[in-house]
Order: sequence, then structure tokens, then C-alpha cells
Amino acid sequence: MVHFDSDYMEGAHPAIMQRLCETNLEKTPGYGTDRFSTRARELVREAVGNHFAAVHFLVGGTQTNATVVSALLWGAEAVIAADTGHINVHEAGAIEGTGHKIITVPGKDGKITAEQVEECLHGFYDDETWMHMAIPSMVYISYPTEFGTLYSLKELEAISDVCRRFSVKLYVDGARLGYGLASKECDITIKDLYRLCDAFYIGGTKVGTLIGEAVVLKNKDLNPHFSTDIKRGGAMLAKGRLLGLQFETMFADNFKLYLECGRNGVDRALELRAAFEAKGWKPCVDSPTNQQFFQLPNTVIDKLTEYATFELWGPRGNEQSTVRFVTNWATKPEEIAELAAAIPQA
Amino acid sequence: MVHFDSDYMEGAHPAIMQRLCETNLEKTPGYGTDRFSTRARELVREAVGNHFAAVHFLVGGTQTNATVVSALLWGAEAVIAADTGHINVHEAGAIEGTGHKIITVPGKDGKITAEQVEECLHGFYDDETWMHMAIPSMVYISYPTEFGTLYSLKELEAISDVCRRFSVKLYVDGARLGYGLASKECDITIKDLYRLCDAFYIGGTKVGTLIGEAVVLKNKDLNPHFSTDIKRGGAMLAKGRLLGLQFETMFADNFKLYLECGRNGVDRALELRAAFEAKGWKPCVDSPTNQQFFQLPNTVIDKLTEYATFELWGPRGNEQSTVRFVTNWATKPEEIAELAAAIPQA
Amino acid sequence: MVHFDSDYMEGAHPAIMQRLCETNLEKTPGYGTDRFSTRARELVREAVGNHFAAVHFLVGGTQTNATVVSALLWGAEAVIAADTGHINVHEAGAIEGTGHKIITVPGKDGKITAEQVEECLHGFYDDETWMHMAIPSMVYISYPTEFGTLYSLKELEAISDVCRRFSVKLYVDGARLGYGLASKECDITIKDLYRLCDAFYIGGTKVGTLIGEAVVLKNKDLNPHFSTDIKRGGAMLAKGRLLGLQFETMFADNFKLYLECGRNGVDRALELRAAFEAKGWKPCVDSPTNQQFFQLPNTVIDKLTEYATFELWGPRGNEQSTVRFVTNWATKPEEIAELAAAIPQA
Amino acid sequence: MVHFDSDYMEGAHPAIMQRLCETNLEKTPGYGTDRFSTRARELVREAVGNHFAAVHFLVGGTQTNATVVSALLWGAEAVIAADTGHINVHEAGAIEGTGHKIITVPGKDGKITAEQVEECLHGFYDDETWMHMAIPSMVYISYPTEFGTLYSLKELEAISDVCRRFSVKLYVDGARLGYGLASKECDITIKDLYRLCDAFYIGGTKVGTLIGEAVVLKNKDLNPHFSTDIKRGGAMLAKGRLLGLQFETMFADNFKLYLECGRNGVDRALELRAAFEAKGWKPCVDSPTNQQFFQLPNTVIDKLTEYATFELWGPRGNEQSTVRFVTNWATKPEEIAELAAAIPQA
Repeated sequence: MVHFDSDYMEGAHPAIMQRLCETNLEKTPGYGTDRFSTRARELVREAVGNHFAAVHFLVGGTQTNATVVSALLWGAEAVIAADTGHINVHEAGAIEGTGHKIITVPGKDGKITAEQVEECLHGFYDDETWMHMAIPSMVYISYPTEFGTLYSLKELEAISDVCRRFSVKLYVDGARLGYGLASKECDITIKDLYRLCDAFYIGGTKVGTLIGEAVVLKNKDLNPHFSTDIKRGGAMLAKGRLLGLQFETMFADNFKLYLECGRNGVDRALELRAAFEAKGWKPCVDSPTNQQFFQLPNTVIDKLTEYATFELWGPRGNEQSTVRFVTNWATKPEEIAELAAAIPQA
Repeated sequence: MVHFDSDYMEGAHPAIMQRLCETNLEKTPGYGTDRFSTRARELVREAVGNHFAAVHFLVGGTQTNATVVSALLWGAEAVIAADTGHINVHEAGAIEGTGHKIITVPGKDGKITAEQVEECLHGFYDDETWMHMAIPSMVYISYPTEFGTLYSLKELEAISDVCRRFSVKLYVDGARLGYGLASKECDITIKDLYRLCDAFYIGGTKVGTLIGEAVVLKNKDLNPHFSTDIKRGGAMLAKGRLLGLQFETMFADNFKLYLECGRNGVDRALELRAAFEAKGWKPCVDSPTNQQFFQLPNTVIDKLTEYATFELWGPRGNEQSTVRFVTNWATKPEEIAELAAAIPQA
Repeated sequence: MVHFDSDYMEGAHPAIMQRLCETNLEKTPGYGTDRFSTRARELVREAVGNHFAAVHFLVGGTQTNATVVSALLWGAEAVIAADTGHINVHEAGAIEGTGHKIITVPGKDGKITAEQVEECLHGFYDDETWMHMAIPSMVYISYPTEFGTLYSLKELEAISDVCRRFSVKLYVDGARLGYGLASKECDITIKDLYRLCDAFYIGGTKVGTLIGEAVVLKNKDLNPHFSTDIKRGGAMLAKGRLLGLQFETMFADNFKLYLECGRNGVDRALELRAAFEAKGWKPCVDSPTNQQFFQLPNTVIDKLTEYATFELWGPRGNEQSTVRFVTNWATKPEEIAELAAAIPQA
Repeated sequence: MVHFDSDYMEGAHPAIMQRLCETNLEKTPGYGTDRFSTRARELVREAVGNHFAAVHFLVGGTQTNATVVSALLWGAEAVIAADTGHINVHEAGAIEGTGHKIITVPGKDGKITAEQVEECLHGFYDDETWMHMAIPSMVYISYPTEFGTLYSLKELEAISDVCRRFSVKLYVDGARLGYGLASKECDITIKDLYRLCDAFYIGGTKVGTLIGEAVVLKNKDLNPHFSTDIKRGGAMLAKGRLLGLQFETMFADNFKLYLECGRNGVDRALELRAAFEAKGWKPCVDSPTNQQFFQLPNTVIDKLTEYATFELWGPRGNEQSTVRFVTNWATKPEEIAELAAAIPQA
């Protein structure tokens, strides 16, 4: 039996576990004031190329999205997102729970375009009744998206440009950032992200840490009380060293380990995709990262279920259904081979 | 110049103004404990045919929607609504401001169907990842809708039936209820509304009162602290008598005045529609109530603007645009005639 | 039977009722864009002496407090108030409902001092654990206070000075402002309020309008989206003209009518106090405005209850209890006389 | 240099680190559906003696408090707490951030009494203006308190009894529960807690886990959607196994390790206290658990600072100040000895 359910089926990269054990009884102050967190913040600032970047470590993705959105927006301000965006679908209303509306635009394979954003903003500013409408004040995109797809640098620059012209903030959910940066189709750098966005986060949980996401804000002016907002949102970790140590480990040597983790996930995913294609099954989304989607006959799905676990994507259809396979930093070539052997011919 | 911008361009029905003046210096206790409010609650309970109905008076529509939704739902619970629903478009994110997500389904002329609701609920309950999704727990519809259309009794019963099977609450926004009940196409009664819904409100502001909406809850068990929630939401009127007196006036004699107000709006709207049709312009929505929508060439719109005010519905198009004309309890036949004379031939 | 329960037992000043009737069928656009509201805003700006003041009309006090506090504060920011402050006691948790903590300091007869505010701010900024604490960012005081007392100009300047030194906003709840300004002990002007505060409101409901409070913000920069926040809070009145017309009436001729209303309330209150004192009962708070508090034996209270209604202030004691008598713009000398005759000798 | 700043200066108990490493590459499904979490829930249910208990694992204390309070209360409902309660002082307004008011009563060494709770509830229910007040609906106490003190079984039963008589929920913050249960003065069991409370949590972070708190709800009916509320609050850990494994380790063999961790903290704390007393310094709170408070001359504090870190409790006084020393599961006798040697004679 092999497992491709999600990005977070294992613990953490062994290098992290080793350092956690080595430093376990060292005494440090709490809440991210420890030496690991201090060094990790420096490393992230180096990676993004700007020492004014405000770097904060949080525990998980939904928590991070809710904290960033609510900390950067005023009451009636809303966030524009793809209808398939994680904040709109799989966060149990966390953004709305902080009081902010999500304005959705139809995504294509998880992506939205600068044109859609501009049209949405015009729709608001040109409407005579705008005073009665939530104010679109932030754009949320994910990189890679929930469908594994990537924005090109040109696409990202176009979205960033619209945002700046309308004084709207751009926020990138990088829960799987490592798998994006490690993809051959990626033509952006983490420095580009910093340059083009107001805020983004570097996902740890899905890319080899036990827990942890690193939020990067353009600068402290976006919200000078961000730490207090983290605390208020219940997202301040007492043993902040856990987060610091993990990101320090990941981001040492120009985020060497983070990229390695990303690369393994992507390499395995492409092998997995090739295995399906070899049997005549084309993916239903052209994803260059660690998630692969296939529309398969239910009979094939049922057969595969004997050998592997993976996720049904949406409800089961009458004849066929969409399924998702996820690889990650820990997936081994043998696991792909075992799955490949089980895939029936189309 | 004649005016058809909205339902609330005048003050209140003269009968209300007269009683307000007559009772102006009478002293009453505050917050709806006065004799007018007590009597008005009785009259509303009689109208809906059940003395267990909990009746509360609030000031305006957005306030009422936010109060009812937040008072009847728990944290992660969400409300299903048409994408064109008032709560989703024109309330500046008030529902989300109370922490609740709106799950939208595409409306047709403002209406949604029992099938759409059921599909939405199945989509949630059949999804393996439901624990990560806001819980659809209430259906919001408006009667009449934002496009002036009406649900038939059969349609309403079907939606109510789905709601009961899934233990989902049904809430009807009756901001323009009077124009619905007074329409010839209406085949429901206010007693049907009470029977089929968990909560609804009887709109006053748009149907002849100065201010005021009457919320009807099936019974007190839906939220025994509803009054305190009204207060907490800033929606408790100190001089509650103002609301009580107005609904007492409207609902005396089996809500005679309320229906009269509704009937005038509908009659004038049908005259207005006939005037356009006589010139060869068909409405773009088949509305039997007090709002009428037309898609007109911009040249015609500009011409009409010299004689009348009305609302551009959505952004102005390149060649033609959609416009809305609203009549109400106070619209006079002469005003329709004046407009009719100004409508150019198609 | 005479009534002294609260400030809002009657409708509105007859001059307002008359104008409401005269203009009742005039058609105006909604949401405060009408001619009455425009003129009323101008009059309020003239009164406060600055044409950059942002003036907004809302319906009631709790609504106004919740709207202002939430519109001027970020997430983790809190408001400092007297423990007896209206927002802390009698608003059903409305401020907390918008997500903000109230930090209380012990009030003396409803007032707090600049020293208390400074100590509270030092307590926060000097505490090593400040990152775990809500950030005191606004001071809320009421003028007159809930006990009818007034801040002197000197006291107000001292509080304002502390606020400015710590970059903390000062907000004054003027629900009964008219009774404050009309008091002989008042040594501030409405221009002083504007000069010393970031925001305050001019209460209408308790000083002769049917409904309505006028919020004055120093300028638009405090929150450029304030109108949308009003809408989101369910506090935007469709027939905004009602508010505009009332404040226009009150504020014409250098707020002549508003002060007259205030003066009547204060004059009657002093007569009422004198009546008690003549019988040997000293007030338990030295209030120069329209609320008077007495600690009376329960036997006296029970006796008075046969002739007058008034409010028990706090729970009934074993031997004696505190009671409140409120006069207002409409109280007549005859009513005081009738009460006076019923007061037993001490 | 020895350190007594807080309970969370180290990583986790070595037994936990070992198991984390051993199981690191095992693949499990997410969000607490893994085998470790399942087993941990069983162990906690056994410990509390009831298989209907609903057990949920969260990451940290503030998050847990905010999640429980908001998940168990309706909108206008408030929580009663000691003024020194953690939720009132050190959670940056997290409870208010979820919309709920905290009603404070003065604590004595961190504790409140059944009489205070009853008085507070009577104060609400006997007040004629209760409809304008937040509804006291939950009592929050901590065990041990923020000052290390413990409620006796009799005191706890009395509070529980008041809560039941008024239909108010009782919630116990057990961030340091292990240090309470391991104290010689403790006369309650974890089964008593379950019996007397509606909800409580078993603190892990401060008692030897890396992260993690176990919430115990009386039963699922208190909130059937609790898991979704956890998710919405950003408190659902993707790699839920981390929490499950830690509590499984702690709670095996009748929570043997958890009590051992607690006992070490308490034993060291009593040694520390004895060391101070031997030099003539009495603690300023009689704490039988792992926190010890002393009021010391600033000169003594400054001297000690050369040898040890500890926390200044509140602002520094002119002559003397209060300081807190915290021991925990990992504190060694040698560390106490090192500190003892540095304490000057009184």
C-alpha cells in the first residue's frame, strides 16, 4: 500500500528532527525571541533580499491566512480570490470569521488573471451603489495554486501592477511554495515574490517541517502590531524556537534544504504523471508541481484503491470521478514504482 | 421631473405621520415595552396565525439581516443565498462582519430553486473534506427578490422541504413583502410564510413606514436571547414606540394599510411597464411587483434622464444599459403618466 | 402620575414633527445624500468650527459607539473606559462584539482622570509582557457622564494631552451632550470638544429628536471608508433625510433649538433636586445636568412609586436603594411640582 | 546562569522526542484522524472516566481558550473571570476578538469564590436593565491559577453548584494542570474536573510536550461542530499526529508520564521556595505548585539577575518589586542549588 493523500502524511525532514533532539533541553525564552527564530528571520530576509521585510512564524496555513488578511484589512475591506481558492473553500469560513468578505472570481485551473482582477475592481468603483458594497482591498492568490499550477512571472507582474494602480494589497499563499520554486516551469524567484507582493508566506508544513509557516510582510508599516494580532488570533507559539529552528534549518545556505524538499516532491510527481500517461491516462490539469489530477473511470479508481490511498476530488460521479495524487519531500521512487505497477491500461 | 430611484424616497404614509403627531408627547417606557409595540406584536402574531411567533421590531433591512443571521447561526455555520441576493451584494459585507460565510448559488432573475439548495447541501455532506468547510445551515431568499420576482407557493414549499430534511433554517428577507403580497401573481399568504420559514421579516421602510422592519421568528426557542442580540448589534431603538406605532397602524384590520401600500406600488409599476411596452420596450425581467427592469439604448436612457430619475443597474454598457424603475406606496398615477409621455418610441 | 424613567419617553420636539410632516412627501435620494443631510452636515461643521470635520448621522447610541470604536481601531487595539461607562455596562457587549476589548479603570461619579489614563498606558508600555496584551489605543469618556457629571475644560485638556503624548485616540460619547452644554457648570464649548477629541457624537435621541446621533470625526483620514463601515454595521438609514432634517432643525441658528432642549432638561432637573433638598434629601451624586441620583429608604421609594415612575439604580438594598430621576427637553414645571408634593420629609 | 522565566523554556520530554523520531516517516492521514490521536483520545476518556467525553487536541493555550469560549457561547453571552485571569490579561483580547465580553470579579491570589459568582449572576438577573447587558453564561477559572494556587474540591464543587443552578457553563483552564494534580495540596482528581465542569483543558505545552493542549468537553452536544470551529479558528493542526502522539505518550498507564512531569515541577518549586525561606524571604503568595512569587528589594533582584533569569511580575517598584520563579518538568535539583547559593540573606 502506498499513500498519496496529502502533503503532510509524515513528520519532518530528518535533519530537522535531529536538530530538535540535539537542542531539546537547551533553555530559550519564548514567543520567537529565541536565537533560532532570530537567525531564521535573518535567513528569510536574506532570501527575499531586503532587510526591511517583517518576518513572522506561525503554525499552520489557515491560521496564517486568517491572521494576515485580518491584520492587513480594515472592517469593510474584502479580499478578491479565485472561487477555488483555499480561503474560499477549505478554511471553514475562517476569513469571514474575522469579519471580512471574500469576493470570488472564477478560477481557471486555480488561477485568476490581472484582467479579472481589474474588471472586479472596475465593477466596484464604477457602480453607483459602491457605498453599499464590501471594498475590494486585497488580492489573494496561491503559488502553486490548489491545482498545482503556477503563475508565470509575467502573469504575476500583471496582477501586481493592477493591485498597485488601485491601491489594493497583493497576498500570496505559499503553502506549497517549495514545490513551486523547485518546478522546472517556475520562472520567478522568492525575491520576485517579495518585490511584487505586499505579503506572502513560505509554507513549511507541506514542505518538510513538522509545523510552521513563515509570513513575509513588505515592511512593518503594513501593521506595526502584527505580533499582537498573532497573539490575539491564538497563533503565537509559546515554544517559538520550534518554528525558528525549523526555518533556520530549511533556509540555511540560501534555502538549500527547502528547495531540496521541493524538488523531491516535484520529481516524484512527474514520475507519477509519466506512469499514468504510460498507461494512457492524461492528467486533467497540466500541473508542473507536486499535485496531479486525473479523471478516471470509477472502476479504475476502485481498483487503484486496493494498492494506494489518494483523494477523491469533489463528489464521486456516476461513471467517472476526479482524483488527486500528492507527492512530497519524503516520497520515494519505489513508492511511485509500486503505484505505477498497479495502474491499469486505459 | 419624476422620480423612480428607490422605494424610500418619501417619508411615511400620512396615517402614520398623523398618529406620530397625535401621540408625540405621550410618555412611554423605552425599547419596545410600550403599549404600541405590545399591540403591534399582537397584530403581527394574528396575521401569521400563531401566538407563539416571536416578533421583534428593528430599524432597517441590512441591520435586520445581520441580526437574524448571526443570532440563529453558530460560528462556523454559513448561509446559502443567490449570488444576486441583497446580503451578498449590497450590505457591505455585514453578514461576514458578524463572522458568517455566504455560500452563493447562481440566481435566475433573483430566485434560486429547491434543487440548487439540495445540490449545494449534498455537495457539502458528500465531500470527504467537509470538516474543512463552512457548514451550510440556513437558506436566505428574498420575497419579492431583488429583481421583483416572486416564488410560487409550490417553489417555496419545495425549498422549505429541502431545508427541513437537512435541518437547515429557512429565512425570508421581506424588505418588499407588501409589494409581493399585493401582487396578482402572489399565491402565498403571510401565514404560509410563517408556516414554511424559521424566520422572515416584514419590511416597513420600503412599504410606507419612516423606518422599521418586523422580524418574525417561528418561536422563542430559536434564540431566547434575541432581544439582547438586537441590543448588542446596536439595533435596539430607544424610542421603540416609533416602530410599534408604525406597525400597529399598518397591521390594524388584518394589515389593511400595509396591503394598500403594497397595492399602490404594484399598480403603478404595472402602469409603468405598460407605458414602456406601449412604446415597444419589453422589460428584461418579468416582474409582477414594484420594480421594473429594462435594457435600453444609452441614447434613450440619456433622453429619459431629462424627465425622470431612476437607477442604472450595474455598469453602463457601450451601446445599451440596464435600468431600474421603482414605484412605491406613494407613487401617483400622474407621475407614471408624466414618465410615459417622455418615453421615446422603440 | 409623573414620569422620570429616562431621557426618551416622548417623541420629538414639535418643531421637528412639524417639519417632518411638511416635507413628508417630498422625494429625496437615500442614505444621507439628501438636501437636509447636506445642510445639517454644514451646520454641524460650522458649530465645531472646522470644515474638515467629517460628520455622519446614525440612529442610536450603542450603534454609534460600536461603529466609531470599531472603525477607528485595528484588531488588537482596545479602548480604555470607566468601569461605569455606558459601553462597559449597558451595551450588551456591543464593543466586544466588534472584536475589541474594553480596559476599565475605576470611575468616580462616572469620571476618570488624566492620571488614571496615563497610569494605565504606562502599565501597558512598561510591562515586559505587553506583546500578550490588548493595546490601549483609545480613551472613551462620556460628557455628561452616566452619572450626570461634567469634565471641566482643564480636566478634558489634561486627558487630551495624555492621549496625544501616547498617540491614543480620544472619543467622547455625547449621548446627552445638550444637557452638558446647557449646564451652568459647563466651561467647554462644542468647539473645544472638536479641538480636544479625535471623535465625538452629538446625541439627538435623548435631547429632542425622534432618533439620531451626529458623529463628528476630526477629519476623513481617521477612516476614509467610514460610510461603508456604517453600512456594514447595519447603521445606515435608508431614509437618511430623517436624520438630516432633525439635525438641521436642531442646529440652525448656531444650534439654538438643541441648546434650548438641553436647557429645559437641566432647569427641570435642578428644580427636582431642589424639591428633594427642601425635604431634607441630599443627592448622592453632585450632578449639574438632567440626571439626579438619590439614596432613599425603601419605604420612601415605595411611597414615591405611587406618584411617579423613575429608575432603580442597581439592585434594591435591604434598607435603602439608589434611584435615578431623569428630566429632558419636554419635562414641564408642573410635573416637577407634582413630584415635589409627593416627596416625604426626611 | 540558571533560568526560571517560564514553563516552556525547553523542548519536550525525551520520551516524546524519541517516539517522534521513531515514527517520523510513518504515513498517517491528517487532522487528528491518525492512530496516535485515536488512541490518545481513548486514554483521555479513560482518565476522565467517561466514554462520552469529547476530546480535541489543539496547539496552544490562548487558542484553546478562544476556541472553547466562542464555540460554547452565543453572541451576547459573556464569560465571568477573575480580573487576573489569563484570558483577561495575557491573551491580547483574544476572547473579545471572538465577540464575547469578559466580566471580571476581583481575584484573590488568582482565585474567585462561588459567592462572587453567585453575586455576579444575581447582579445581572436582578437588574431591571438586564436586557442591555452581556449575559453571564460561563465561568472561567484556571487550575492552578496564574498565581500557582489551587481550588479545593469543596471550593470547586461550590462554584460548579452555582453554575448549574444558573445554567451557566463552567470551564477550567488547565494550562498547568499537571502541576496542580501533582501537588500535595491537591484534593481533586481529573475525574472530579470532568464531573464538575462542562469543559476543561489538559495543558501539554507547559508540562512537557512540544506543543499541545487536550480539550475535554462533557459531551458532543455542547457543540456538535466543534471540529469545524477548531478549523475556522485556524487551530486545526494538519499533522494532528504530533498532538496525538504526545498525549498518547503522556497519558499511557493512567497518565503516568504527565504526573511525573508535574511532580518534578512541583518538587523543584518547593525546594526553590525553601531556599528563599532559608534566607529569610517569605513568598508573597502561598503557592503549592510550580510558580513561586516573592516581593524583593530591587537591590536583591538586581543581584540575583547576575545568576538567574526570572520574570518581573508587573512594573518595577521604587524600592521593591514582585518577581516570579517558574520550575517545570525539566528543572534539575542542581539548578535550584545554584540559585539557592546566589540568594542573599534577608
